[in-house]
Amino acid sequence: MSKGLPKRSEDYSLWYNELVKRADLAENSPVRGCMVIKPYGYSIWEKMQAQLDKMFKETGHTNAYFPLFIPKSYLSKEASHVEGFAKECAVVTHYRLKNSEDGKGVVVDPDAKLEEELIVRPTSETVIWSTYKNWIQSYRDLPLLVNQWANVVRWEMRTRLFLRTAEFLWQEGHTAHASKQEAIDETVQMMNVYAEFAEKYMAVPVIKGVKSANERFAGAEDTYCIEAMMQDGKALQAGTSHFLGQNFAKAFDVKFATKEGALDYVWGTSWGVSTRLMGALIMAHSDDNGLVLPPKLAPIQVVIVPIYKGDDELDRISDKAKEIIAKLRAKGITVHYDHRDTHKPGWKFAEYELKGVPLRIAMGPRDLENNTIELARRDTLTKETINLNDVEIDAYVEALLEKIQESIYQKALNFRNEMTTEANSWEEFEDLIENKGGFLSAHWDGTTETEEKIKELTKATIRCIPIDQKAEEGKCILSGKPSKGRVLFARAY
Amino acid sequence: MSKGLPKRSEDYSLWYNELVKRADLAENSPVRGCMVIKPYGYSIWEKMQAQLDKMFKETGHTNAYFPLFIPKSYLSKEASHVEGFAKECAVVTHYRLKNSEDGKGVVVDPDAKLEEELIVRPTSETVIWSTYKNWIQSYRDLPLLVNQWANVVRWEMRTRLFLRTAEFLWQEGHTAHASKQEAIDETVQMMNVYAEFAEKYMAVPVIKGVKSANERFAGAEDTYCIEAMMQDGKALQAGTSHFLGQNFAKAFDVKFATKEGALDYVWGTSWGVSTRLMGALIMAHSDDNGLVLPPKLAPIQVVIVPIYKGDDELDRISDKAKEIIAKLRAKGITVHYDHRDTHKPGWKFAEYELKGVPLRIAMGPRDLENNTIELARRDTLTKETINLNDVEIDAYVEALLEKIQESIYQKALNFRNEMTTEANSWEEFEDLIENKGGFLSAHWDGTTETEEKIKELTKATIRCIPIDQKAEEGKCILSGKPSKGRVLFARAY
Repeated sequence: MSKGLPKRSEDYSLWYNELVKRADLAENSPVRGCMVIKPYGYSIWEKMQAQLDKMFKETGHTNAYFPLFIPKSYLSKEASHVEGFAKECAVVTHYRLKNSEDGKGVVVDPDAKLEEELIVRPTSETVIWSTYKNWIQSYRDLPLLVNQWANVVRWEMRTRLFLRTAEFLWQEGHTAHASKQEAIDETVQMMNVYAEFAEKYMAVPVIKGVKSANERFAGAEDTYCIEAMMQDGKALQAGTSHFLGQNFAKAFDVKFATKEGALDYVWGTSWGVSTRLMGALIMAHSDDNGLVLPPKLAPIQVVIVPIYKGDDELDRISDKAKEIIAKLRAKGITVHYDHRDTHKPGWKFAEYELKGVPLRIAMGPRDLENNTIELARRDTLTKETINLNDVEIDAYVEALLEKIQESIYQKALNFRNEMTTEANSWEEFEDLIENKGGFLSAHWDGTTETEEKIKELTKATIRCIPIDQKAEEGKCILSGKPSKGRVLFARAY
Repeated sequence: MSKGLPKRSEDYSLWYNELVKRADLAENSPVRGCMVIKPYGYSIWEKMQAQLDKMFKETGHTNAYFPLFIPKSYLSKEASHVEGFAKECAVVTHYRLKNSEDGKGVVVDPDAKLEEELIVRPTSETVIWSTYKNWIQSYRDLPLLVNQWANVVRWEMRTRLFLRTAEFLWQEGHTAHASKQEAIDETVQMMNVYAEFAEKYMAVPVIKGVKSANERFAGAEDTYCIEAMMQDGKALQAGTSHFLGQNFAKAFDVKFATKEGALDYVWGTSWGVSTRLMGALIMAHSDDNGLVLPPKLAPIQVVIVPIYKGDDELDRISDKAKEIIAKLRAKGITVHYDHRDTHKPGWKFAEYELKGVPLRIAMGPRDLENNTIELARRDTLTKETINLNDVEIDAYVEALLEKIQESIYQKALNFRNEMTTEANSWEEFEDLIENKGGFLSAHWDGTTETEEKIKELTKATIRCIPIDQKAEEGKCILSGKPSKGRVLFARAY
């Protein structure tokens, strides 16, 4: 299978698209810009969901569900929000079809026009804050910590599987608080939850930071984010957490009686990650042979492939394999035993490399004689022969999976560090962005004007002002005006 | 709280609506016909989802995700399907808004009209079978066993929370098979999975059966179903499983190479349950005090309420409560300790009754002295005092929760049996349907004409032809024509 995969180094974009399709992760649907998430891809997303959901619940959030549709007038209630989302949305105008006059199909029934058009949610702040108005009266009703798993639609013109699609799956947290500081703390907490998930589960190192005004969420006072580095030197925004101030509370008139008996607007946050994380996961680790999955998100962690001639040999290998499978499963390791006779071992090896299964165990007749197995790591493509007399196979595999998880992360971290460069002059900046890529740490004068000019000249945007930015006097690389610290630029997905 | 709840016996419909809202299950949204599923309601749905998902995976299915939108022309490809779904659907016609000329809001941008309108999926057979065409070439690709958790939209004119809403959440399984028999077996298997879930988890007894032609899914050859009895004597269809024959394979040209080398159309099934199950769960068991939840689906299985004066007493009760909580949690029991000082014990008792928490433990200072607790069952509203010296509290509570689960089911089953009556003449039928309700087991001549006439005269429909229908010669209660066995009639939700 993988022999047909384009080389990552030759055409990164084509490599990505083909990998997504051939590894059975997703494909384009008949509906423009919408994807089909295939079973194997969806099973990775399910693992992501399960872990994130656990982390949300551990931080006190509960799930709920709000309507798919948003009345058109709601979008306009928060001024900058409508600017951000009205330009690319799916609009429902009618609620019925009827048979066409030629009898060959159906047409929109002009008598079934909605009084007010409905927008398929691009994000749910408006419909949720209109609901919160009824849920919140007093400080006793706060904080309100709600999350929703849902599909959203943004009518993107240029789409790419997982990275940018008209419809995507995501979670959106929407919280309400009695004080500004509590809302800011929540915003930062959720950025940290996302960063922990990216690093510990996806094995993707991220930079935590704050967006510039220009890149802020439409309706937020501040947008916190995590930014990851892909193998082609482009950055990818992997999650955002917004401090909404009192903007949506004011737009939807959500007030509460304070402990002191006054009446005040509620403070809000929202935060989300989406199926875009699948794109980040794929692009951060995979290679010319296919996917490389961190063990914690791999639907199959270990595959066992018997190498045999005839049923008798298969039976004997299977007996041994079953012992190993039982031991591994008892440790909570997901094992798949592929003894199909329709495909040769070599085909299977390539297939599971393409699909990123972290560990492959091969067992042939000689292994039976010697009580050995062959163990192959997907991430390093290295093999070793293990004598089962020498090791406890379950403990060995468990430890190895942990080592692989750590090793994949470390490799990505090393790459990210190599790809993070200080640029101290405009010439250097231009040269680096064009010839090296990656994150450029550079001084900026803090104005949107300069930011946009840099984007125009180089296609690089400010990914974030890092949280741990150290105070450092300097001069803006473009304007030469004073700057108080470096920010991170990159070309980005 | 509960004192405000209308009486079930006086106004069933009002009782249901108020219960759904006051128990924090769901409420109407600002979008016509769409509901907000509130955190407590959603947490019950999550428990349902988790169990169903487990059962689907145990029967070999995997999850995937298909687009929200369906091109209008796809709906028409299966003739009866479009008849069933085109009449009540949300139609997306535009992909952009723009600022209105008066500057006061946004309007649909007439320049952003879609070439082909998109329908928000009412069900996904069409878009899925158009995808299966690319996934299936040979018998080796079969069976294809896929499920999707998703939202769907049907533009219902008269809506009721959970029971009938314009948008609802559901799962839809879509499978493809190499033979007719295998597809029928799958259809029956999934009906059985639904029945097992309803009975063992929801504690709702169901009748398994087949729909009459008139009540069949638009595009199916046969619709299998499970039918439940609500406390007002009306039936509720709780799940359906459709044998699609080769209808969708033909509509979307999905053929496969058979083992023998021939080319044939694929056989299909689809099956689904929705948030409607929440309605069934609520209506099957609840009473004038509020919800009654079977322990297996209760988000909180045990609540502990301390009865105290002052912090010192609370501390001593809390120490004891924590011991009990640790023991119960070690058994996997979900416990909530409500020691809020903002509400009195009596208020809390009513609140947890309203919310259907199966077991309530109360502990006061005298209980501390005597090493006792008071244990109250939600389903029977009975109380007992337990001496902790006499019982292992964790084992006792675990067994009691099982007993409650069984007892709720048995009560519903007894009711269903009482409400199932044989009607042997038209007079008897009319009298029973009007004055008793429930299921009427009666002879029917097998024609749609008679079925529709009975519906017109009595509002009763054929709920199903039971799977275990016994052969019994008889005469149709309305037409007097010959019948080969009894079918089940009822008024239904």
